[in-house]
Amino acid sequence: MIKAGIIGATGYAGNELVRLLMGHKEVEIKWYGSRSYIDEKYASVYQNMFQIVDAVCMDDNMEELAEQVDVIFTATPQGFLAGVLTEDILKKTKIIDLSADFRIKDVAVYEKWYNIEHKSPQFIEEAVYGLCEVNREQIKGARLIANPGCYTTCSILTAYPLVKEGLIEADTLIIDAKSGTSGAGRGAKLPNLFCEVNENMKAYGVTNHRHTPEIEEQLGYAAGKEVLINFTPHLVPMNRGILVTEYATLKKNADGSLPTYEEIKAAYDKYYEKEKFVRVLSKNQCPETKWVEGSNYVDIGFKIDERTGRIIMMGALDNLVKGAAGQAVQNMNLLFGFEESEGLNLVPMFP
Amino acid sequence: MIKAGIIGATGYAGNELVRLLMGHKEVEIKWYGSRSYIDEKYASVYQNMFQIVDAVCMDDNMEELAEQVDVIFTATPQGFLAGVLTEDILKKTKIIDLSADFRIKDVAVYEKWYNIEHKSPQFIEEAVYGLCEVNREQIKGARLIANPGCYTTCSILTAYPLVKEGLIEADTLIIDAKSGTSGAGRGAKLPNLFCEVNENMKAYGVTNHRHTPEIEEQLGYAAGKEVLINFTPHLVPMNRGILVTEYATLKKNADGSLPTYEEIKAAYDKYYEKEKFVRVLSKNQCPETKWVEGSNYVDIGFKIDERTGRIIMMGALDNLVKGAAGQAVQNMNLLFGFEESEGLNLVPMFP
Amino acid sequence: MIKAGIIGATGYAGNELVRLLMGHKEVEIKWYGSRSYIDEKYASVYQNMFQIVDAVCMDDNMEELAEQVDVIFTATPQGFLAGVLTEDILKKTKIIDLSADFRIKDVAVYEKWYNIEHKSPQFIEEAVYGLCEVNREQIKGARLIANPGCYTTCSILTAYPLVKEGLIEADTLIIDAKSGTSGAGRGAKLPNLFCEVNENMKAYGVTNHRHTPEIEEQLGYAAGKEVLINFTPHLVPMNRGILVTEYATLKKNADGSLPTYEEIKAAYDKYYEKEKFVRVLSKNQCPETKWVEGSNYVDIGFKIDERTGRIIMMGALDNLVKGAAGQAVQNMNLLFGFEESEGLNLVPMFP
Amino acid sequence: MIKAGIIGATGYAGNELVRLLMGHKEVEIKWYGSRSYIDEKYASVYQNMFQIVDAVCMDDNMEELAEQVDVIFTATPQGFLAGVLTEDILKKTKIIDLSADFRIKDVAVYEKWYNIEHKSPQFIEEAVYGLCEVNREQIKGARLIANPGCYTTCSILTAYPLVKEGLIEADTLIIDAKSGTSGAGRGAKLPNLFCEVNENMKAYGVTNHRHTPEIEEQLGYAAGKEVLINFTPHLVPMNRGILVTEYATLKKNADGSLPTYEEIKAAYDKYYEKEKFVRVLSKNQCPETKWVEGSNYVDIGFKIDERTGRIIMMGALDNLVKGAAGQAVQNMNLLFGFEESEGLNLVPMFP
Repeated sequence: MIKAGIIGATGYAGNELVRLLMGHKEVEIKWYGSRSYIDEKYASVYQNMFQIVDAVCMDDNMEELAEQVDVIFTATPQGFLAGVLTEDILKKTKIIDLSADFRIKDVAVYEKWYNIEHKSPQFIEEAVYGLCEVNREQIKGARLIANPGCYTTCSILTAYPLVKEGLIEADTLIIDAKSGTSGAGRGAKLPNLFCEVNENMKAYGVTNHRHTPEIEEQLGYAAGKEVLINFTPHLVPMNRGILVTEYATLKKNADGSLPTYEEIKAAYDKYYEKEKFVRVLSKNQCPETKWVEGSNYVDIGFKIDERTGRIIMMGALDNLVKGAAGQAVQNMNLLFGFEESEGLNLVPMFP
Repeated sequence: MIKAGIIGATGYAGNELVRLLMGHKEVEIKWYGSRSYIDEKYASVYQNMFQIVDAVCMDDNMEELAEQVDVIFTATPQGFLAGVLTEDILKKTKIIDLSADFRIKDVAVYEKWYNIEHKSPQFIEEAVYGLCEVNREQIKGARLIANPGCYTTCSILTAYPLVKEGLIEADTLIIDAKSGTSGAGRGAKLPNLFCEVNENMKAYGVTNHRHTPEIEEQLGYAAGKEVLINFTPHLVPMNRGILVTEYATLKKNADGSLPTYEEIKAAYDKYYEKEKFVRVLSKNQCPETKWVEGSNYVDIGFKIDERTGRIIMMGALDNLVKGAAGQAVQNMNLLFGFEESEGLNLVPMFP
Repeated sequence: MIKAGIIGATGYAGNELVRLLMGHKEVEIKWYGSRSYIDEKYASVYQNMFQIVDAVCMDDNMEELAEQVDVIFTATPQGFLAGVLTEDILKKTKIIDLSADFRIKDVAVYEKWYNIEHKSPQFIEEAVYGLCEVNREQIKGARLIANPGCYTTCSILTAYPLVKEGLIEADTLIIDAKSGTSGAGRGAKLPNLFCEVNENMKAYGVTNHRHTPEIEEQLGYAAGKEVLINFTPHLVPMNRGILVTEYATLKKNADGSLPTYEEIKAAYDKYYEKEKFVRVLSKNQCPETKWVEGSNYVDIGFKIDERTGRIIMMGALDNLVKGAAGQAVQNMNLLFGFEESEGLNLVPMFP
Repeated sequence: MIKAGIIGATGYAGNELVRLLMGHKEVEIKWYGSRSYIDEKYASVYQNMFQIVDAVCMDDNMEELAEQVDVIFTATPQGFLAGVLTEDILKKTKIIDLSADFRIKDVAVYEKWYNIEHKSPQFIEEAVYGLCEVNREQIKGARLIANPGCYTTCSILTAYPLVKEGLIEADTLIIDAKSGTSGAGRGAKLPNLFCEVNENMKAYGVTNHRHTPEIEEQLGYAAGKEVLINFTPHLVPMNRGILVTEYATLKKNADGSLPTYEEIKAAYDKYYEKEKFVRVLSKNQCPETKWVEGSNYVDIGFKIDERTGRIIMMGALDNLVKGAAGQAVQNMNLLFGFEESEGLNLVPMFP
């Protein structure tokens, strides 16, 4: 039984961490950190936890917390962890960071896209990008995990095998992403009001969304060269779920023909056939966000367009589970040698 | 490890049973019965079950099924179970019926409200009304459980302690109930289309909804006399959740005063303090359906109106869990001597 | 062509006033008042008005505005108008107040329920409660109109004929009301975030909602005596629409029988048959909020319960139209002698 | 005052036609045609029309109808109009067809994508594609208008000026489209049930949606050459609204530079500056479906990505108005010489 602390426990991702860890056999939550609700009962902030969580919210003192727990989850705004992290903390505890602070290896890229000075670049190199299906082995020995973003997890996993196997022209990749509103967090902002979001749809962050360089970096490793993409997120009137629709030109075979369905499927199977949490759907099946809701699955489908020579890849996940808290727990399981799916055997809830 | 069969596995309640039983340590599902999808893969009907359920849908042959399993869940239309039930079946297996066939003791009342002839009234008497918090002991020894309806579970549990303790005038009880749309089932009917339900709200079944006599019968047992109520259901544009708002005149004390908050609270505590799945909220807290979503909880709150002498009681549950499949599993746990909460330790999902 | 000013033009009700007045032949909007957006383009606050409204937001200087326009709509927080109103202003312009400041005749009741000191009680007496179908004649000659609340308009009109005609026991009236979220306004508050409201339902303001005394006062006039009711509002995950479900005990005839459907229907027809904006539905038809969306209609239906001796009355309206801006325009039409339905010939939008 | 008939008046587009024509000064609806509801009151099928439309539904006898009216709107399934159209009918009345029967000039293309035999190819040539902003002059003299599809109107208008002016590589065009559910019609089908659509998102018709060749044909005229695109529609949990996100590679200037914002904007202005119903938004503004709801507007925004050399164009409209009934009325206005915006001065409803 290990002990865990959560900084940012009162955000939506923090609350989802609590939900998942409550069902995990090997973990006990010792610290519900929150900046806004210190000394308030956690269950009064999230009434769904009434009679389930009895604890009171603590502050975000990482140093003190590091003394008490085996792992800290930081579900905090950009810049928080980089601002407080020390070697001393890392010697005492593992850290799984749900923010973007340690996701990008090139600090200049981070500072340009996030418009924040990075306060502890010395830890960037050792941080492991916690995309479990891709970096499983490195994760196991890490002290600091950069848990991927929700859009990013979905975007990368959907294209990864085809980029890695060189089946598509990586620079033609266009990712049109759609997200439920919980991804916007629990801040009381006008654009996130029910009446502004409901019965509405819009793109945002067009050409400059912060998840773009994260996707480009990871797909660049797969491609073995720099990759430039377009990534366009959209806000959808639903609570949970991310759907990505990805377009890319297929590389032609020597004889000018396109890869077949079977060749593409084989590439996906090569990487995902043994992966519990990545489900490559049957032929012609398009993923739906509802089919993964509440679970740690990513569902992937694809369709070849003979007319245009492009492939359309689609991926779906629950942004709060595989896109945040679920993947964080999966990373924790790897870090501590637990069964990788412990606490994550969640059957998607329908409807 | 017991074996279970589900007749009506392809309805929403059936699918929820599958979700819950997948997380139950002591049960294995052997039969996914369906009238419409025989021989189709269950996971092609409910794609959320892809790579989770590998089985193919079977028919609804109860006699054959009784040979194979320890318990049968019937999540079927009114009249199905009454039409096929035999003593032979009941000798071989336990039955938990999610339909209304055996909920009402007076067959004439059943036939009047449901407008169906009851085909096996001989089993009505032995059937136990499976409201676990009220009938726990009788359930344990039963062969046939009449699993309560979703509206009914919420309506009864919210008022039960005050009726039982004689704190309210039972005949003044008015129940205004609101339900998510999954309660209407998965049938392809025009009034249940997205565009008809979304951004809309309406009452239906006013004065004649079939759950009315079920509530009256159960509260009548608590009151020790016949009770007549008004019950008005409403359709709400959300997937899951039932909220009931109940109004009743408080009985005055001998000195003309009303019962205090503490007296009412004590009555609730008397019946529910030790109940895991009934959460009586803190003073002035109103239940929200979202706080129980995906879980087996019923949340209850109340407020005394000194001006009118009435009490307003509110209850919330997830219609597919405590209102259907969750309570069915709870009943199964009681029937087979498992931990009552086995498979039901579900933390409500928010948002 | 008259000139109008709106104070509070950047709230949802203010924006709806703009929408309606844009389609009114006799009015020109001269002043888009706003506290938060002074000097910003109105169409940048409400992008739906792009290329439709070219004006810039003004402040809320009533004295200056009174010089310029024939009528002022105040869609402002409680206390604003009472705090600035003067005889001088009222001599220069008509005022239609969408806040509660002048709705309640008894200043002590106002101050108790709203917990605000009333700053200009001297104008309360002359203010006319602008429920057009009930107070049409007094409205025509008024200087100051207290435009009724959204819940109130729906609640009162649904019960009015039966109270007025003495067909129900007024003190048994229980109003269970459900509202879309636009009624909560455009303030950036956590409980109104999409993820908090969507897939959720709750009661609020139980026993103490501020619309209660307004309903009691108006129904008291109809009953010819003081009336005490229960009023319970609920928040529903939809943008627009109010549905009220009202319960009351029918007065029995001398022979102990209940009034018939025809007798009740006749009472409704007596008051509403000639009213364009009140539609008493056909027998057994229950109103749906969607059937009135975007329009100035109130739809009313009812059902007699012979078993309990109660009647269930139901009413539906669009809270931003008949519940706010539409009724304000209707009042303006009466004040200035325009056709009462001018600008309000809006066909409900479905879906 | 002209007379109009609607075949298919009981679908969502038909009902929207009724809503719009009710507010049109020059038209009277004489015939509410319906296959499913003959002899039923129209207002019983669409209760929003209670006390507004008194008529009873008629059949779909085009020949008889042609005798009685000046214009017929056919809001019917594919193949209906082609199956019944005759020269005799066209001599007597104008026809505005909301189906796809006469949208595509190449009958082989139609038959391949729709998998229906075209029963009256002899009328295809004279039919005018009723995209008002593009084909205004031809529309004025036509007998038969092929009213564009909802996805198509949005997709074409968003890209048209840049294709026409040769600013983008037309063959790189990728259209990712998102639609509210009313586009799926009022048929009682399982995938359109509330619980299947709500809290869900999916792509459908990937690589083979029927609107693809319609978009390709029209953009081909603009490009002056054949154009092949990818078009991917998605279902969104909202009633109304289409949003398209379009990606294309910008043609570089001779010096290798990309066109500037101003150059792109000038191209849009060249075609749309005087168009009432096309609103090109301010710089960096992304369209939202809610900003056009209930109105005939198309809102367009765009963003240049210097990194990838692509432009992202976005368009939004209400699929039932500009995407169906509104454009049909606009076409009727052109056909009969009415003010083009008559009956269409609808301010978008927010929220």
